[in-house]
Amino acid sequence: MSFDPETLNYDANGLIPAIAQATDGTVLMMAWMNAAAVVRTLESGRVTYWSRSRQAFWVKGETSGHTQRLIDFRVDCDRDCLLLVVEQAGPACHTNRRSCFYTAVRDGGEVELMAPEA
Amino acid sequence: MSFDPETLNYDANGLIPAIAQATDGTVLMMAWMNAAAVVRTLESGRVTYWSRSRQAFWVKGETSGHTQRLIDFRVDCDRDCLLLVVEQAGPACHTNRRSCFYTAVRDGGEVELMAPEA
Repeated sequence: MSFDPETLNYDANGLIPAIAQATDGTVLMMAWMNAAAVVRTLESGRVTYWSRSRQAFWVKGETSGHTQRLIDFRVDCDRDCLLLVVEQAGPACHTNRRSCFYTAVRDGGEVELMAPEA
Repeated sequence: MSFDPETLNYDANGLIPAIAQATDGTVLMMAWMNAAAVVRTLESGRVTYWSRSRQAFWVKGETSGHTQRLIDFRVDCDRDCLLLVVEQAGPACHTNRRSCFYTAVRDGGEVELMAPEA
Protein backbone atom coordinates (compact mmCIF):
# COMPACT_ATOMS: atom_id res chain seq x y z
CA MET A 1 0.00 0.00 0.00
CA SER A 2 1.48 3.36 -0.91
CA PHE A 3 1.57 5.97 1.82
CA ASP A 4 -0.57 9.10 1.64
CA PRO A 5 0.11 11.65 4.45
CA GLU A 6 -3.50 12.79 4.19
CA THR A 7 -4.61 9.41 5.57
CA LEU A 8 -3.15 10.32 8.96
CA ASN A 9 -5.53 11.70 11.57
CA TYR A 10 -4.55 15.25 12.47
CA ASP A 11 -6.10 17.20 15.32
CA ALA A 12 -8.26 20.32 14.98
CA ASN A 13 -5.09 22.33 14.38
CA GLY A 14 -3.92 20.00 11.62
CA LEU A 15 -1.21 18.49 13.82
CA ILE A 16 -0.16 14.99 14.84
CA PRO A 17 2.16 14.14 17.76
CA ALA A 18 5.50 12.62 16.82
CA ILE A 19 7.63 10.72 19.34
CA ALA A 20 11.37 10.55 18.60
CA GLN A 21 13.18 7.44 19.81
CA ALA A 22 16.92 6.81 19.50
CA THR A 23 18.13 3.57 17.95
CA ASP A 24 19.11 2.30 21.44
CA GLY A 25 15.49 2.65 22.57
CA THR A 26 15.76 5.90 24.53
CA VAL A 27 12.69 8.09 24.07
CA LEU A 28 14.16 11.50 23.29
CA MET A 29 11.27 13.94 22.86
CA MET A 30 7.78 14.50 21.55
CA ALA A 31 6.86 17.29 19.15
CA TRP A 32 4.26 17.94 16.47
CA MET A 33 4.01 17.66 12.70
CA ASN A 34 1.53 18.84 10.14
CA ALA A 35 1.04 17.01 6.82
CA ALA A 36 3.69 19.15 5.12
CA ALA A 37 6.22 18.39 7.86
CA VAL A 38 5.49 14.68 7.43
CA VAL A 39 6.23 14.99 3.71
CA ARG A 40 9.43 16.98 4.30
CA THR A 41 10.64 14.47 6.89
CA LEU A 42 10.03 11.50 4.61
CA GLU A 43 11.51 13.18 1.55
CA SER A 44 14.59 14.67 3.20
CA GLY A 45 15.32 12.09 5.90
CA ARG A 46 15.86 15.04 8.26
CA VAL A 47 13.22 15.11 10.94
CA THR A 48 11.16 18.27 10.53
CA TYR A 49 8.49 19.27 13.04
CA TRP A 50 5.97 22.09 13.04
CA SER A 51 6.70 24.62 15.75
CA ARG A 52 3.43 25.61 17.41
CA SER A 53 5.03 28.62 19.10
CA ARG A 54 6.73 29.94 15.96
CA GLN A 55 4.09 28.62 13.52
CA ALA A 56 6.89 27.53 11.22
CA PHE A 57 8.72 24.41 10.12
CA TRP A 58 11.30 23.30 12.62
CA VAL A 59 14.10 21.32 11.04
CA LYS A 60 15.40 19.72 14.21
CA GLY A 61 19.02 20.77 14.80
CA GLU A 62 19.12 23.37 12.02
CA THR A 63 20.42 25.95 14.51
CA SER A 64 21.98 23.74 17.19
CA GLY A 65 23.44 21.07 14.94
CA HIS A 66 21.60 18.47 17.01
CA THR A 67 19.90 16.93 14.01
CA GLN A 68 17.74 13.84 13.79
CA ARG A 69 18.27 11.56 10.82
CA LEU A 70 15.22 9.46 10.13
CA ILE A 71 15.80 5.72 10.44
CA ASP A 72 12.20 4.49 10.56
CA PHE A 73 8.83 6.22 10.38
CA ARG A 74 6.01 4.44 12.19
CA VAL A 75 2.28 5.08 12.47
CA ASP A 76 0.02 3.85 15.27
CA CYS A 77 -3.20 1.85 14.97
CA ASP A 78 -5.43 4.93 15.10
CA ARG A 79 -3.15 6.79 12.68
CA ASP A 80 -3.11 9.71 15.10
CA CYS A 81 0.41 9.37 16.51
CA LEU A 82 3.85 8.89 14.92
CA LEU A 83 6.95 7.13 16.23
CA LEU A 84 10.18 8.19 14.59
CA VAL A 85 13.27 6.09 15.10
CA VAL A 86 16.15 8.51 14.67
CA GLU A 87 19.87 8.85 14.73
CA GLN A 88 20.27 11.76 17.10
CA ALA A 89 23.34 14.02 16.82
CA GLY A 90 24.19 15.39 20.27
CA PRO A 91 21.55 16.05 22.91
CA ALA A 92 17.90 16.11 21.81
CA CYS A 93 16.74 18.49 24.54
CA HIS A 94 17.16 22.26 24.43
CA THR A 95 18.54 22.00 27.98
CA ASN A 96 21.49 20.07 26.48
CA ARG A 97 20.38 16.78 27.96
CA ARG A 98 20.17 13.68 25.83
CA SER A 99 16.42 13.28 26.38
CA CYS A 100 13.70 15.78 27.27
CA PHE A 101 12.34 13.22 29.76
CA TYR A 102 14.98 13.83 32.41
CA THR A 103 12.65 14.29 35.37
CA ALA A 104 11.00 11.39 37.21
CA VAL A 105 8.32 11.47 39.87
CA ARG A 106 9.31 9.04 42.60
CA ASP A 107 7.98 8.70 46.14
CA GLY A 108 5.96 11.87 45.71
CA GLY A 109 8.90 14.01 44.67
CA GLU A 110 10.77 14.98 41.53
CA VAL A 111 14.16 13.51 40.70
CA GLU A 112 16.54 14.64 37.97
CA LEU A 113 17.71 11.61 35.98
CA MET A 114 20.42 13.17 33.84
CA ALA A 115 22.59 16.25 33.75
CA PRO A 116 23.22 18.53 30.78
CA GLU A 117 26.02 17.32 28.53
CA ALA A 118 29.28 19.23 28.67
CA MET B 1 10.86 18.92 45.33
CA SER B 2 7.43 17.43 45.93
CA PHE B 3 5.33 16.78 42.86
CA ASP B 4 2.15 18.74 42.17
CA PRO B 5 0.12 17.47 39.17
CA GLU B 6 -1.17 21.01 38.64
CA THR B 7 2.34 22.08 37.63
CA LEU B 8 2.06 20.05 34.43
CA ASN B 9 1.06 21.90 31.29
CA TYR B 10 -2.27 20.57 30.01
CA ASP B 11 -3.77 21.54 26.67
CA ALA B 12 -6.97 23.53 26.14
CA ASN B 13 -8.96 20.37 26.94
CA GLY B 14 -7.07 19.81 30.18
CA LEU B 15 -5.12 16.88 28.72
CA ILE B 16 -1.46 15.89 28.47
CA PRO B 17 -0.08 13.19 26.14
CA ALA B 18 1.38 10.13 27.86
CA ILE B 19 3.74 7.75 26.06
CA ALA B 20 3.90 4.20 27.42
CA GLN B 21 7.24 2.40 27.04
CA ALA B 22 7.93 -1.18 28.05
CA THR B 23 10.90 -1.95 30.26
CA ASP B 24 12.74 -3.39 27.24
CA GLY B 25 12.48 -0.01 25.48
CA THR B 26 9.60 -0.79 23.11
CA VAL B 27 7.27 2.17 22.70
CA LEU B 28 3.82 0.65 23.18
CA MET B 29 1.25 3.42 22.73
CA MET B 30 0.38 7.04 23.32
CA ALA B 31 -2.80 8.16 25.06
CA TRP B 32 -3.97 11.11 27.14
CA MET B 33 -4.32 11.97 30.82
CA ASN B 34 -5.99 14.75 32.73
CA ALA B 35 -4.75 15.85 36.15
CA ALA B 36 -7.06 13.40 37.91
CA ALA B 37 -5.77 10.51 35.79
CA VAL B 38 -2.21 11.53 36.69
CA VAL B 39 -3.10 11.36 40.36
CA ARG B 40 -4.86 7.99 40.01
CA THR B 41 -1.92 6.55 38.08
CA LEU B 42 0.61 7.67 40.67
CA GLU B 43 -1.50 6.60 43.63
CA SER B 44 -2.59 3.21 42.30
CA GLY B 45 0.42 2.22 40.20
CA ARG B 46 -2.08 1.13 37.52
CA VAL B 47 -1.80 3.32 34.45
CA THR B 48 -5.06 5.22 34.02
CA TYR B 49 -5.70 7.40 30.99
CA TRP B 50 -8.55 9.72 30.12
CA SER B 51 -10.58 8.41 27.22
CA ARG B 52 -11.38 11.31 24.89
CA SER B 53 -14.03 9.29 23.03
CA ARG B 54 -15.80 8.05 26.17
CA GLN B 55 -14.99 11.10 28.32
CA ALA B 56 -14.20 8.77 31.19
CA PHE B 57 -11.25 7.33 33.07
CA TRP B 58 -9.65 4.45 31.22
CA VAL B 59 -7.87 2.07 33.54
CA LYS B 60 -5.72 0.37 30.93
CA GLY B 61 -6.55 -3.33 30.77
CA GLU B 62 -9.56 -3.16 33.09
CA THR B 63 -11.65 -4.98 30.48
CA SER B 64 -8.99 -6.83 28.48
CA GLY B 65 -6.68 -7.73 31.34
CA HIS B 66 -3.83 -6.09 29.43
CA THR B 67 -2.87 -3.85 32.29
CA GLN B 68 0.08 -1.51 32.65
CA ARG B 69 1.86 -1.44 35.97
CA LEU B 70 3.71 1.81 36.46
CA ILE B 71 7.45 1.42 36.85
CA ASP B 72 8.58 5.00 36.33
CA PHE B 73 6.73 8.26 35.68
CA ARG B 74 8.69 10.87 33.74
CA VAL B 75 7.98 14.45 32.74
CA ASP B 76 9.58 16.32 29.85
CA CYS B 77 11.39 19.65 29.92
CA ASP B 78 8.30 21.65 28.95
CA ARG B 79 6.15 19.66 31.38
CA ASP B 80 3.66 19.07 28.57
CA CYS B 81 4.35 15.40 27.83
CA LEU B 82 4.70 12.30 30.02
CA LEU B 83 6.74 9.14 29.53
CA LEU B 84 5.52 6.14 31.50
CA VAL B 85 7.79 3.14 31.84
CA VAL B 86 5.43 0.23 32.35
CA GLU B 87 5.23 -3.47 32.87
CA GLN B 88 2.75 -4.41 30.15
CA ALA B 89 0.59 -7.52 30.59
CA GLY B 90 -0.16 -8.99 27.16
CA PRO B 91 -0.47 -6.85 24.05
CA ALA B 92 -0.83 -3.09 24.52
CA CYS B 93 -2.76 -2.51 21.28
CA HIS B 94 -6.49 -3.13 20.88
CA THR B 95 -5.59 -5.03 17.68
CA ASN B 96 -3.85 -7.57 19.94
CA ARG B 97 -0.40 -6.51 18.81
CA ARG B 98 2.31 -5.81 21.34
CA SER B 99 2.65 -2.17 20.24
CA CYS B 100 0.26 0.23 18.55
CA PHE B 101 3.14 1.33 16.30
CA TYR B 102 3.07 -1.74 14.06
CA THR B 103 3.03 0.07 10.72
CA ALA B 104 6.13 1.58 9.11
CA VAL B 105 6.41 3.80 6.07
CA ARG B 106 9.31 2.55 3.97
CA ASP B 107 10.17 3.31 0.34
CA GLY B 108 6.91 5.18 -0.07
CA GLY B 109 4.72 2.31 1.09
CA GLU B 110 3.30 0.91 4.29
CA VAL B 111 4.73 -2.20 5.89
CA GLU B 112 3.25 -4.19 8.77
CA LEU B 113 5.93 -4.86 11.36
CA MET B 114 4.15 -7.27 13.68
CA ALA B 115 1.16 -9.59 13.64
CA PRO B 116 -1.57 -9.88 16.28
CA GLU B 117 -0.65 -12.21 19.13
CA ALA B 118 -2.38 -15.56 19.25
